[in-house]
Amino acid sequence: MGEQSSIAFSITWGERMPNTVSELSKQWYTTSFRVRYQETDQMGVVYHANYLNWFEIGRTEMIRELGFTYREMEEEGVLLPVIDLNIQYGAPAHYDDHVTVYTRMIDFSPLRIYYEYEVRRLTGDDQNSLTAVVEEGNLSGERLVTGSSRHVWVNKDWRPTRLDKCVPKLYDALRTSLLGGKE
Amino acid sequence: MGEQSSIAFSITWGERMPNTVSELSKQWYTTSFRVRYQETDQMGVVYHANYLNWFEIGRTEMIRELGFTYREMEEEGVLLPVIDLNIQYGAPAHYDDHVTVYTRMIDFSPLRIYYEYEVRRLTGDDQNSLTAVVEEGNLSGERLVTGSSRHVWVNKDWRPTRLDKCVPKLYDALRTSLLGGKE
Amino acid sequence: MGEQSSIAFSITWGERMPNTVSELSKQWYTTSFRVRYQETDQMGVVYHANYLNWFEIGRTEMIRELGFTYREMEEEGVLLPVIDLNIQYGAPAHYDDHVTVYTRMIDFSPLRIYYEYEVRRLTGDDQNSLTAVVEEGNLSGERLVTGSSRHVWVNKDWRPTRLDKCVPKLYDALRTSLLGGKE
Amino acid sequence: MGEQSSIAFSITWGERMPNTVSELSKQWYTTSFRVRYQETDQMGVVYHANYLNWFEIGRTEMIRELGFTYREMEEEGVLLPVIDLNIQYGAPAHYDDHVTVYTRMIDFSPLRIYYEYEVRRLTGDDQNSLTAVVEEGNLSGERLVTGSSRHVWVNKDWRPTRLDKCVPKLYDALRTSLLGGKE
Repeated sequence: MGEQSSIAFSITWGERMPNTVSELSKQWYTTSFRVRYQETDQMGVVYHANYLNWFEIGRTEMIRELGFTYREMEEEGVLLPVIDLNIQYGAPAHYDDHVTVYTRMIDFSPLRIYYEYEVRRLTGDDQNSLTAVVEEGNLSGERLVTGSSRHVWVNKDWRPTRLDKCVPKLYDALRTSLLGGKE
Repeated sequence: MGEQSSIAFSITWGERMPNTVSELSKQWYTTSFRVRYQETDQMGVVYHANYLNWFEIGRTEMIRELGFTYREMEEEGVLLPVIDLNIQYGAPAHYDDHVTVYTRMIDFSPLRIYYEYEVRRLTGDDQNSLTAVVEEGNLSGERLVTGSSRHVWVNKDWRPTRLDKCVPKLYDALRTSLLGGKE
Repeated sequence: MGEQSSIAFSITWGERMPNTVSELSKQWYTTSFRVRYQETDQMGVVYHANYLNWFEIGRTEMIRELGFTYREMEEEGVLLPVIDLNIQYGAPAHYDDHVTVYTRMIDFSPLRIYYEYEVRRLTGDDQNSLTAVVEEGNLSGERLVTGSSRHVWVNKDWRPTRLDKCVPKLYDALRTSLLGGKE
Repeated sequence: MGEQSSIAFSITWGERMPNTVSELSKQWYTTSFRVRYQETDQMGVVYHANYLNWFEIGRTEMIRELGFTYREMEEEGVLLPVIDLNIQYGAPAHYDDHVTVYTRMIDFSPLRIYYEYEVRRLTGDDQNSLTAVVEEGNLSGERLVTGSSRHVWVNKDWRPTRLDKCVPKLYDALRTSLLGGKE
């Protein structure tokens, strides 16, 4: 594991860490970017498959915020493919919109992860007040798309694996980060 | 319908709903192609968002088989955006695999369309025996991914529209093709 | 044209503006982002076509830095399609790399624009010192890919158009921004 | 070779270069497909980067026609990344157009391959008369885009390799296929 993960091992959490799944699920992690021209289609809106790429960016940046990177996970020999996903399209994003992906984990175990997402369009005021982590109920911007996805840990041979057996250091660190060490 | 889909909130179903859904749903339309290099990712498999593109190809070719094209629909002033979608990932497709998308309509009205999909990997024997339309229970190849999507008819201003009012010729033809003229 | 372009009209340039193409070409505009998982392929590197998307992002952000947006240009009825492009691949970018696209205009007329690009991989130190505009010879990071592209102004009917006749306000503002009002 | 391509700097051409380039270059290999909705952008045309994907499909199908597959090449431990590419955009392709990619090798050695492409839009009549291999001067359809690309053989460590040393069976077969066994 690279240098960056060492950041996670030195994290010391305060006393009021979420220690249950329902508390865990209250926090959203944010990442923002502009819509690329390549992401539009001839309807003049973002092509619907691109929101799945954005969900992935949301996961990537949430993990980074927790002190890890997907890249390091893969270098440790574990992959995290999606096993199912659903998505609801409310209103379309347009070229050059400033969008934010809100991402949170709503379940986490040695075997799998369950994520939830909201994609929102931000105005100038929203952008200025956006923080890396947002409490439930405080999401800003116009909600465009929502979704969720489930993932399992697999090894390089694409077989399901228990993260706590396979890469215990990573599992412990994720658990500590997400649940404050309590199960 | 998902709560989040604001497009669809105002839709109220008419009285003359199709009542032959079970017959309609028996037939699958097929389209086949090889996996492109660009569709793979560094896991060595097809990136998960690409299956949504493939579902779209399935819809396009099903409509063509029925005697229409999406292109003509758009030229008539109607669009058919997706309002929600779900997808289950069973096994990954790989570069250069010969895959078939099986597509069918499981609901159809003047207001909306509900599609279902299976993506399967075909071997040489499967490929030779593949026909444009396949009865339920006769799908060949290894099932990789399944999914479904709901769509509403909207006009150029992105507002829900009744296909039977807006482009009656198209509606009648679709109904005739799909339901054999019976409602 | 939206609010943002008014920024450009109020720009007052200092005395030492570039007034020839060769001076114009000395400045590079920068934009940075992380490589997306979706952009990798099974070689474990960024799929080669994606650099063209990145060039586009470079153009978009350069124009924004000058006080305009592509979105506004399209709303004014002018498009700027690429007519030719070349690209040299030196070393590949990888997933999660922090890359910077350096973009500059090396020619500009009422009829066309000629851009040049460098894609570079930045380390932590490079990232901290990166500015929006960089003088020639001061590019930081490891050079991965270089390229250039030519574009013509066309109208909504896809016919070449003189920007100074079609949208003189935009032409004057661009010329002022880029050449300091001198030709 | 472009100066910027560091991959290729150390390559020195062997003595036994193909001397039948002019014969080799006469034949075009064809592959056809319909434009996907996902490939369009909000200009209502194919996004310009997608032609690079299509060039790749042209290469893939040409190699398959010669009796090999890229997949097998990669399984043998050789990769064929692009080191430079240029592309000229004449007229845009649209959604659902039936396009053909014409591909030919205009240079081939143990170290590298140089490809040339034409993308053309076919009408119904063109489609019916299209064959897998077409002689120079007999290309049908409306020419939209042209281009060329250079590639080097590299091993799994991304280092230039001689195909005749690394996978002689493949090299001999390619040479036989392309040059009729003459050098």
